[in-house]
Amino acid sequence: MLALVFDGERLLLQGDYPRPVPSVGEALVRVRLAGICNTDLEIVRGYMGFRGVLGHEFVGVVEEAEDRSLAGRRVVGEINAYCGECPTCRAGRPTHCPNRTTLGIWGRDGAFAEYLTLPVRNLHVVPDEVPDEAAVFTEPLAAALEVLEGVHLRPTDRVVVLGDGKLGLLVAQALALTGCDLLVVGHHREKLAILARRGIPTMLESETEGLSADVVVECTGRPEGFAAARRILRPRGTLVLKSTYHGRVEADLTGLVVDEITLVGSRCGPFPPALRLLQRGLVDVQSLVSEIYPLSRGLEAFARAAQPGVLKVLLRVE
Amino acid sequence: MLALVFDGERLLLQGDYPRPVPSVGEALVRVRLAGICNTDLEIVRGYMGFRGVLGHEFVGVVEEAEDRSLAGRRVVGEINAYCGECPTCRAGRPTHCPNRTTLGIWGRDGAFAEYLTLPVRNLHVVPDEVPDEAAVFTEPLAAALEVLEGVHLRPTDRVVVLGDGKLGLLVAQALALTGCDLLVVGHHREKLAILARRGIPTMLESETEGLSADVVVECTGRPEGFAAARRILRPRGTLVLKSTYHGRVEADLTGLVVDEITLVGSRCGPFPPALRLLQRGLVDVQSLVSEIYPLSRGLEAFARAAQPGVLKVLLRVE
Repeated sequence: MLALVFDGERLLLQGDYPRPVPSVGEALVRVRLAGICNTDLEIVRGYMGFRGVLGHEFVGVVEEAEDRSLAGRRVVGEINAYCGECPTCRAGRPTHCPNRTTLGIWGRDGAFAEYLTLPVRNLHVVPDEVPDEAAVFTEPLAAALEVLEGVHLRPTDRVVVLGDGKLGLLVAQALALTGCDLLVVGHHREKLAILARRGIPTMLESETEGLSADVVVECTGRPEGFAAARRILRPRGTLVLKSTYHGRVEADLTGLVVDEITLVGSRCGPFPPALRLLQRGLVDVQSLVSEIYPLSRGLEAFARAAQPGVLKVLLRVE
Repeated sequence: MLALVFDGERLLLQGDYPRPVPSVGEALVRVRLAGICNTDLEIVRGYMGFRGVLGHEFVGVVEEAEDRSLAGRRVVGEINAYCGECPTCRAGRPTHCPNRTTLGIWGRDGAFAEYLTLPVRNLHVVPDEVPDEAAVFTEPLAAALEVLEGVHLRPTDRVVVLGDGKLGLLVAQALALTGCDLLVVGHHREKLAILARRGIPTMLESETEGLSADVVVECTGRPEGFAAARRILRPRGTLVLKSTYHGRVEADLTGLVVDEITLVGSRCGPFPPALRLLQRGLVDVQSLVSEIYPLSRGLEAFARAAQPGVLKVLLRVE
């Protein structure tokens, strides 16, 4: 099958990549549409040390599954395949299972290919009202909702989302639904305008002198984002970290103690609420699509996704 | 008056230091006993850029106050003198007042002297049952209790206190009262033995291979403590930072995101519960006293406090 593969050094488009074979409990999914995430770009820079088919945001159709009622259904899939038996899984934290594989990120080929496999328990049927171009955003919208899983956001909180990239725009839209006093800080007028059109207040980072927030959600994807978030956050405030990147940061831990800051790391999130919000049309994802390429032009698509100012680049597989 | 002063380069014992004059709302306190804290040792290494009389742990007697009923009373004092009028104070976070001075740490002469001044509202009368040698621990015990102010510790949580220094031993005793599944990890058998005698489980750090905790409280006072705490903490666990030191740390923020760790900085705490625990004899502080020196031998006392293996060194002023 056709697949976009990272071999540890380069991205390659392979026409003869072996079609994956589902294990017990897994489904074979024919991919329809997949999204390029910043994590994919970071993996190509060395993050996670992954080799194989990239991609973890997708919508597809079940081709084979033990549960026959799933065949032919349109699905999205949670990306962490867990064992279900270790103490971490039994404690209700399967996304942290030490035995997990992660679609296109760790130990499991991903979605930039004609087919992928995932455990059936990871799949969620997409409601008919949600088109492929929206369903493909379920995974990143779930990651945005994970902020609300990890932190109690009060409707009266002053909240700043830092970063106007793909994730920042999704996090902002998810948090705005709480009614909180939200401000999105970024660098790109045209990206911030997507939110402004929906009535969400925005500001350029150069204008934030003197700004103070109870909660800051760091979505810049850059190491510098941490210091920028700290400048805005009040003492005893909460800093939610969403960015993952290849490399370490010099952090002032003593400053966190003196200001009694709470830092909350936040990663993958719950799919059902993401699908509910998409079904109700409460989050605008279509404005986030910069371009759609066929998988056969995947290398071009990757180069495009890495350009500054570009939002979501999608890969159409069939 | 006699005072132990840091001039930005050296510690000096000065016999002719000017006696402080209380401002409106302040009391003049004659110091009886004061404790040397690791923060004092860090200040001498450059932390906070402080110059003046060191010391913030004390018990003393009110010599002068507008409120005459206070005169002659034995008191301890909260160390942050706040304005009470700024948005931070009005929001109920006076220990984070941006206009604050901090006894012996920032903008206000401290307790290693015959006299100090503090706002009357910072003072707490010491119950008669609490001797000076215990009352002088009110401030660090309050800092230990701040862990419980900032984090909801469940009686079923597996909690590790990392560090068997003065602060670690106080934090351990405070947390043990919650009934949680507590383990204290340190480097010094003789310090851990103080806790073991009270029935609190302990372990040498070299033996912690494979250990996993829901909550880790980092009290090592050393930059290496952060990585050590992360090794023990489970995914989605909570890491409470108590250590302050001069210098920055290279931290893996992406690791915090991937493991969805919550980091909570924790500093000064509430005095009334600390006094209640001391009054009821629920925390053993007397075992933590390594030595008592007269203030006139303050330089010797400082050198002693900085030696490895030494716990609390007290300065008797009168």
